[in-house]
Amino acid sequence: MENFVFENPTRLIFGKNTIGRIGPEIKKAGIRKVLFLAGGGSIKRNRVYQKVVRSLQENKISWVEVWGVKPNPVLSKVREAIKTARREKVQAVLAVGGGSVIDSGKAICAGVYLKDIWQAFEGKVKIERALPLFVVLTLSATASEMNQWAVLTNEEEKKKFGLGSRHFYPRVSIVDPTAQYSLPWEQVVNGAIDGISHIMENYFLGKGEEASLAYNESLILSIIEAVDKIQENPRDYQARANLCWCITLAHNGFAGAGLSGGDWSAHRIEHSISALYPEVAHGKGLAVVFPAWLLYMQKYNPKTFLRFAKNVWRVKSVEGAVKKMRRKYKSWGAPVRLRELGIREKDISALAENAMLFPSLGVLKRLNKKDVKEILKLAL
Amino acid sequence: MENFVFENPTRLIFGKNTIGRIGPEIKKAGIRKVLFLAGGGSIKRNRVYQKVVRSLQENKISWVEVWGVKPNPVLSKVREAIKTARREKVQAVLAVGGGSVIDSGKAICAGVYLKDIWQAFEGKVKIERALPLFVVLTLSATASEMNQWAVLTNEEEKKKFGLGSRHFYPRVSIVDPTAQYSLPWEQVVNGAIDGISHIMENYFLGKGEEASLAYNESLILSIIEAVDKIQENPRDYQARANLCWCITLAHNGFAGAGLSGGDWSAHRIEHSISALYPEVAHGKGLAVVFPAWLLYMQKYNPKTFLRFAKNVWRVKSVEGAVKKMRRKYKSWGAPVRLRELGIREKDISALAENAMLFPSLGVLKRLNKKDVKEILKLAL
Repeated sequence: MENFVFENPTRLIFGKNTIGRIGPEIKKAGIRKVLFLAGGGSIKRNRVYQKVVRSLQENKISWVEVWGVKPNPVLSKVREAIKTARREKVQAVLAVGGGSVIDSGKAICAGVYLKDIWQAFEGKVKIERALPLFVVLTLSATASEMNQWAVLTNEEEKKKFGLGSRHFYPRVSIVDPTAQYSLPWEQVVNGAIDGISHIMENYFLGKGEEASLAYNESLILSIIEAVDKIQENPRDYQARANLCWCITLAHNGFAGAGLSGGDWSAHRIEHSISALYPEVAHGKGLAVVFPAWLLYMQKYNPKTFLRFAKNVWRVKSVEGAVKKMRRKYKSWGAPVRLRELGIREKDISALAENAMLFPSLGVLKRLNKKDVKEILKLAL
Repeated sequence: MENFVFENPTRLIFGKNTIGRIGPEIKKAGIRKVLFLAGGGSIKRNRVYQKVVRSLQENKISWVEVWGVKPNPVLSKVREAIKTARREKVQAVLAVGGGSVIDSGKAICAGVYLKDIWQAFEGKVKIERALPLFVVLTLSATASEMNQWAVLTNEEEKKKFGLGSRHFYPRVSIVDPTAQYSLPWEQVVNGAIDGISHIMENYFLGKGEEASLAYNESLILSIIEAVDKIQENPRDYQARANLCWCITLAHNGFAGAGLSGGDWSAHRIEHSISALYPEVAHGKGLAVVFPAWLLYMQKYNPKTFLRFAKNVWRVKSVEGAVKKMRRKYKSWGAPVRLRELGIREKDISALAENAMLFPSLGVLKRLNKKDVKEILKLAL
């Protein structure tokens, strides 16, 4: 087990009918005015918006709304919201939505104190402070509700970069699984595959860390079981709650403890896909990239890859595991091949080129452009 | 899954050669003088003391030492240390030891601001503030290094009570598994059984929380595997690290998430044993009480008890699971019967009487004196 530091100051309030607790939490922090950040309006249809607004009103907290954060959130929107935050002198950001809204919220919280937030994503400026961030989660996927990570796309430069900062932990996050009953099935699946992928990024660095490997296997199995149950009955509360909690644990420091911080090359390859094909949802890209990544990378840590095949998929080879994984993902309606995303063999070069923009790619093996091409070919 | 709040602000520094990081952490917090709290001197023999002292010196932190905290830590020692802390005007407590030292440290940190710390354990006074607590762990058992709990014995009144407070979370805890290489085997086993027992207190409230049940099973299995490996080779680092990490996770909020906060009646029955027989180590008492508790309690949640038998012990009945559990504990040298602790049938009444001192006993079933007697009879 590699040395690690576990520190996660986020207060996570989890469960049924918990959305109304956001107002008291903000008030308790001495905050009177927030920037209310949201996506495209689904939170009005599922009444999350109304519950949040009532809670703010009851606690005499005023707010200014910024709408329109999209999946694969973009820098221009963040810049717009930073201007609003400064002009309106808000004391905190309240992100109501999924990972895109929360990640944008993190960038806004830090960005109000910086000349240009993108400089931080480029690694040229260090984040020294940020406004407090409050979250009401409406889609479990990124675990951004309980971690220090944000991913942002610079649409002009076609770069999708991630950034971690200890100032990015939300102060309080509310996860009410019932708020996800009305999600389109496709988004549930994307979120689950994102969660499974976060676990896998850590898992395959394992070299006998029995505890971490075993509980990571249990998380993957629990996610799969929960998604199967939700596919049968979208209002199965127990399954929803299991899914939400596993997805948070998949990327809040717990899954990666003792595993060197994870590999993350599959994620970065996927980031290149969504940088060049912004219409591709992150979860879909991962569903396509990860099985191919497993096939290509198995030789660099065969014992753990075989353990995964055996303990998660009950088969004896990585090829067998990938076959079952692709079958499972397909049964949920997810794509498993690049062509299903509209990407052909001739497009692979440009993707591999883009992946090389990252300062480094891969820990289990430092990947070069040829490696990335080979992985993408296995995903054709 | 029951609603829950997960919040754990402790910064956990985990791994090889990490003890020297204590000085910089204390310094970073702006602290210049600490009360150095310790047990009986084993930390001098295994050189932990010397490493801590060097780190304090290098960071220009002064300290005053209080030695002599014993297993099943007592109120009188805490009171003595509170006097020292006040007189010496320390700004923090540094607990170097196992659960007894850390729990005493928590009581001291809060106690300097109270007229009588025992009043808080009796539930008559609320803890509103506390000095910051720093920890260097030398025995994994209670998870006190990363939780809000402390257990203290009032030796005059023969009461052993636990108390939780959000002011009890250590600020920083260092867990270096190599510091545990030199532990007597018996203490390793007691710690492991304490960890397994913490998981079981939560687990058996489960009613289909697939995620929590599955990862709790993985933690128990990992602990068993690690102890078996350490029994073969006390310097197996991977096994030591797995054991330490699982024991922390067993009682830092993670194992209990969504499981209503756990049952804790077996722990309280054990607390009565060590209140009346202070020479009985907590882990030994649990090794005796828990198998009997399982036999008696199975009828109140049969599905989950049978799941435990199947997934952890690979047998089809709770009786079969208890048989295997007792055999495993015995193979580690732990007692599994009251008589091995020197307790006879005629002593059971007094124990049951003492257990009734708790304001309440049990969640899965509210236990009365007759229940406790029946459980203890199954442990004869």
